Amino acid sequence: MSKNLGFQFSSATCGFKKTKKPDLALVYSPIPCTYAGVFTINQVRAACIDENKESLKKHKKIKSIVINSGSANACTGKQGIKACKETKQITAKLLNIKPEEVLVASTGAIGLHLDMSKMKKGLELAAPKLDSKNFNAAARAILTTDRNLKTANVKTKDFEIFGFTKGAGMIHPNMATMLCYLFCDLNMPQSLLQSALRESTDISFNAITVDADMSTNDMVILLSNNTSKKVVKSKNDHLYHDFKMALDQICADLARKIALDGEGAKKLIEVIVTGAKSDDDAREIARSIASSNLFKCAVFGSDPNWGRAAARVGATKVKIDQDKLDIYLNMVCVFKQGNPLPFNKEKLNKEITKNKGVRIVVNLNLGNRAGSALGCDLTREYVNFNSAYFT
Amino acid sequence: MSKNLGFQFSSATCGFKKTKKPDLALVYSPIPCTYAGVFTINQVRAACIDENKESLKKHKKIKSIVINSGSANACTGKQGIKACKETKQITAKLLNIKPEEVLVASTGAIGLHLDMSKMKKGLELAAPKLDSKNFNAAARAILTTDRNLKTANVKTKDFEIFGFTKGAGMIHPNMATMLCYLFCDLNMPQSLLQSALRESTDISFNAITVDADMSTNDMVILLSNNTSKKVVKSKNDHLYHDFKMALDQICADLARKIALDGEGAKKLIEVIVTGAKSDDDAREIARSIASSNLFKCAVFGSDPNWGRAAARVGATKVKIDQDKLDIYLNMVCVFKQGNPLPFNKEKLNKEITKNKGVRIVVNLNLGNRAGSALGCDLTREYVNFNSAYFT
Repeated sequence: MSKNLGFQFSSATCGFKKTKKPDLALVYSPIPCTYAGVFTINQVRAACIDENKESLKKHKKIKSIVINSGSANACTGKQGIKACKETKQITAKLLNIKPEEVLVASTGAIGLHLDMSKMKKGLELAAPKLDSKNFNAAARAILTTDRNLKTANVKTKDFEIFGFTKGAGMIHPNMATMLCYLFCDLNMPQSLLQSALRESTDISFNAITVDADMSTNDMVILLSNNTSKKVVKSKNDHLYHDFKMALDQICADLARKIALDGEGAKKLIEVIVTGAKSDDDAREIARSIASSNLFKCAVFGSDPNWGRAAARVGATKVKIDQDKLDIYLNMVCVFKQGNPLPFNKEKLNKEITKNKGVRIVVNLNLGNRAGSALGCDLTREYVNFNSAYFT
Repeated sequence: MSKNLGFQFSSATCGFKKTKKPDLALVYSPIPCTYAGVFTINQVRAACIDENKESLKKHKKIKSIVINSGSANACTGKQGIKACKETKQITAKLLNIKPEEVLVASTGAIGLHLDMSKMKKGLELAAPKLDSKNFNAAARAILTTDRNLKTANVKTKDFEIFGFTKGAGMIHPNMATMLCYLFCDLNMPQSLLQSALRESTDISFNAITVDADMSTNDMVILLSNNTSKKVVKSKNDHLYHDFKMALDQICADLARKIALDGEGAKKLIEVIVTGAKSDDDAREIARSIASSNLFKCAVFGSDPNWGRAAARVGATKVKIDQDKLDIYLNMVCVFKQGNPLPFNKEKLNKEITKNKGVRIVVNLNLGNRAGSALGCDLTREYVNFNSAYFT
């Protein structure tokens, strides 16, 4: 099997970023790929979201993805859509493929028109360098405020999945997270690929939050070049389950990396909600806790302030009974059936500092469904960062 | 007319606060008062909320309110309710009134049992000092992380309303804000007093946010000792409208003072949403913008980053059309019918710094309903403050 399943990657510097770091990633598959996509549900959304959703409806296979960072092409009206179509045309010409075989994506500042002369220059630089070895360079070119490269892979005897993601701020996805590109070789109908991606996304990217700000550009794309010798025909195939497990694992791994790399983040917040009447209820409460500014500040200070989390359990639209609530910080029960329990604050404080994070388990005691969320602490660095970004 | 309509106030230091500042306010009216109340809808709520809601159902008139700061008596189970009842009994005995003529309220750290020996000592100190002159002392005793005393009053030839409030963190009320006590003399049926308070609260306290964290202890109480010579009988009375206007003004004034005094806040964020299909839609979007961490950080940095606000317009469940959106920062149109407009960033940046805040007007262009929200910026001080509060 060729390196990276034969997928080719490249990067270039167009000049969208003030830092002059690489800001364009180009992906190319010589083999036409089945693909699935999950997008932001923010109604204020970037041109690339509309363009790709249209693609997914009309075109069965694609060969290329163009991703630029530094300029989000969001809130740019008709000119934004025109920029997407032009990007696809330029790419198609350079790669000798059709414009409808190209997907586009952008991340960066909102409200600026995409500079198409910079885009053209970047694509001309990137196209000749396409190579299966340049995976990391492409993964790096889509980063903005991220501190770390975020990639993952799973390989079984039957198939392989690998991919990269970015995201550090404006992270509170619903349907998808900032940008994530996954590649595999398993041959299956598009409908199965799509439902697998949707399900894996719901329990991974849709369960993280950095700042409760949902982005305009969120997107997860999964490509399969169908080169594995195995073929999946239905959800009942044993191989589909293996694939789904691997996809869940990759998405969870990448989502965790985003939460850990949250702007200014020092500590991870892991929330598990059990005893709910539905998975959705459990997830909503988990996200409510993980996105509480007050609880996030407490975690930054290694403060076992479970009361701030308890307040968030009651603040969603999910019906709960405070007299049935149990709350554990790490493995210590601090609140049982609506009553506070004495606990060793100093010990928990040291533990949170040492572990660089906290795990909070909430039992609603109303049913048997569960859900989780991942977040990070709120630090002075987050404020520094986001008060000096645009002007 | 006697000072403060004859309402008497007092304060004492029980020792609930680590700072040893006054932490108990006692209110007393020799005349039995009609009263109205609006409470948090957080399902995790303090014992005093349940206790006062029960009162409001059963008892028509009250004479006293006991408010302690430093310990919220929230998440304290049956022992919390017992503490409320005991507080009412001690107060009733000291003032020679009935326990059911007393309301109770608490603010402070969640999950700690109220120390009843401290409470008893404080009440014994406070009761003999009751005087209509001690209004400011009582208003000060309920403050926690507030920097400033927050009071307001309106006086007309027919009636007078005055009151005090507290709140600086865990401010994202729904139904009421942290704690607010209003006093008046106008004679009207309880049902009218209640509906006036509900309506005024909806467009004032329920439209502010400091950190999107809804409290467990929110409460607004309005007392009338009915000593004005005028009597209101129905909503159609001219005098009811005068009263409602005055109440709206007081609530708006106090709500604005809370937003301005938000933990660590340096700048005010005023959001006005117009062109909505309903008032509720407009308010939901206004609050979504005012509570965006990213937009709040931008305002801290005096950065006219309207894109972050635009993203929040699309992130609620309210249906919008991004191609119809207009956005103004101060009086400058930066986004028109879904297209970005060029504007002088440096000028706006200086203006935000100079004015210590920003006004953002969003026109959804979908209807003729409107709503507003008030918030504050997110600063390093907020993080400092809330990472070192409990332990």
